[in-house]
Amino acid sequence: MVTIKQVAEEAGVSVATVSRVLNSNGYVHEETRKAVEKAIEKLHYRPNEIARSLYHHTSKLIGLVVPDITNPFFPELARGVEDYLQQEGYHLMIGNSDENVEKEVQYIEAFRQHNVMGVISSTSEETAEWTKLNIPVVLLDRVQNDFPSVYADQEAGGQMAANILLERGSRNITLLRGPIHLRIAQERFLAALHVLGKSDVHFQVMNTSFSLHDASSTAKQLFDQYPNTDGVIAANDIVASAVLREALLRGKNIPEELQIIGYDDIPVCELLYPALSTIHQPAYEMGKEAAKLLMKSLKQSKKINEQMMLPVSFVERETTRKVEKV
Amino acid sequence: MVTIKQVAEEAGVSVATVSRVLNSNGYVHEETRKAVEKAIEKLHYRPNEIARSLYHHTSKLIGLVVPDITNPFFPELARGVEDYLQQEGYHLMIGNSDENVEKEVQYIEAFRQHNVMGVISSTSEETAEWTKLNIPVVLLDRVQNDFPSVYADQEAGGQMAANILLERGSRNITLLRGPIHLRIAQERFLAALHVLGKSDVHFQVMNTSFSLHDASSTAKQLFDQYPNTDGVIAANDIVASAVLREALLRGKNIPEELQIIGYDDIPVCELLYPALSTIHQPAYEMGKEAAKLLMKSLKQSKKINEQMMLPVSFVERETTRKVEKV
Repeated sequence: MVTIKQVAEEAGVSVATVSRVLNSNGYVHEETRKAVEKAIEKLHYRPNEIARSLYHHTSKLIGLVVPDITNPFFPELARGVEDYLQQEGYHLMIGNSDENVEKEVQYIEAFRQHNVMGVISSTSEETAEWTKLNIPVVLLDRVQNDFPSVYADQEAGGQMAANILLERGSRNITLLRGPIHLRIAQERFLAALHVLGKSDVHFQVMNTSFSLHDASSTAKQLFDQYPNTDGVIAANDIVASAVLREALLRGKNIPEELQIIGYDDIPVCELLYPALSTIHQPAYEMGKEAAKLLMKSLKQSKKINEQMMLPVSFVERETTRKVEKV
Repeated sequence: MVTIKQVAEEAGVSVATVSRVLNSNGYVHEETRKAVEKAIEKLHYRPNEIARSLYHHTSKLIGLVVPDITNPFFPELARGVEDYLQQEGYHLMIGNSDENVEKEVQYIEAFRQHNVMGVISSTSEETAEWTKLNIPVVLLDRVQNDFPSVYADQEAGGQMAANILLERGSRNITLLRGPIHLRIAQERFLAALHVLGKSDVHFQVMNTSFSLHDASSTAKQLFDQYPNTDGVIAANDIVASAVLREALLRGKNIPEELQIIGYDDIPVCELLYPALSTIHQPAYEMGKEAAKLLMKSLKQSKKINEQMMLPVSFVERETTRKVEKV
């Protein structure tokens, strides 16, 4: 590897001069600058990011923690983050926390050790460790009062899901509540619950996780316990897919006898048959906006406390009935 | 942040001595060592990975490049890699290449700049850039003669898929070929083609990508061009899901009139109705083995050239007919 010393020798200047040229600070005579640039080009010298990092206490790394990249919602978020960062010349260190605080702490330590310039976190809402980092942290798909964050409008999403099933005639609705410790899950649940509570339909609540492993047994239990359900508001699309499969297995006509609405709009929704109607969260855009917010914070070198809420929308497919437009 | 100098002052020794203790090299008197350790503990000093990196030309970073993390096969691979590396105290820098050589080169440069100790690559088979890195590279789900690699037995997988449809009575099979530039896709295609070629059934070949965006139109085209198809060997599970949906839309009975077999065994297969029969690639294990191979290469500090082929297996679900076991 070519060193800065070799560049200095080639250009006939001191190492300090080459450094001034590289970092565009301090006075350098125009001809000297040209000589250095020529030497850099000739030797294919590329300043080492590690050396630069030690000197300036900066790096081109951003840390990203997600609960589990195998949940299809998170790859979209992560790509949104990465595509924006790449344009800005930054790169990602990534970790899966499995919502496990101990793993989260390990990643925070690793981020610190590698001088990451900022962190984007989509994981549990324990924030004590994050504050110790002393670098900008942006929450993504998570909300906590003292941190800037980017999230989707869960209240509107929950209301929308409930209203859509009501407008389309479901009279016995099962509402599936996601993990109670996740504020985003609880917000949409409460919003849907409120809409159902104001209506005159029969409804019941069941708890579920967001995970594929639990989805099938949740779905079985749902139809065992509440066989007359004619509308399901699922905690996410994974759970909705499992409910759809179980309903088809039991010979139900979808959407005539049973309507199902998911949440997230993961890519597989449109490949199901019938295709899953759902509430779309703009995952890719959320990731992008979080990256943008973090970059803004880095450039301004001051703490920002922006909360950015993105809108959700209803994606009408085949698991909800059509309504006549007047 | 506490510096090594402060530790030295607290312990009443030189910075060089603290460094010898930290790096366990050179002679340090037992009592001096204890004094340094006590100072480290008292001040909560943690050696900065960046400084260590500059000094030793090492880091605790591994680079991983995948084509696109939003393709559900890759999150499983990536988790396998990460979970193993985490145990070993290593962390991941990750990049999506979109099979675009220019993006790949940008990531390689970023890896170099951040002193990653090794790279795992699941992306295109252009390898010229990788050799310039001069650090261990392990290919994952990709094969190239001069590199160690971990991949699944594509030949067995392709044969298995074709034999299963034949044994279960399909007489007019459409074989979908994945991207021709990917050796793994081509290998399984050729193996299936060979089995069909030796049989007396009618068959045809159609080209497709691995992508969700193209899957629906491929599926439509398939039934428009070959309406009498009674068996489909799909390039992967995404394409198989789209074929399943299109077949159900056209009122076909699955598996009585049409059998479909996928490839990969992504998590969503079991949520489809009927659930997708497929060839299982052990993605998580492949990721783990690639990480293990890379660690081995790092520890031995010499180039290894191991090719590790993992077995595939048939996962019988509901899109293939049952055969009577004798």
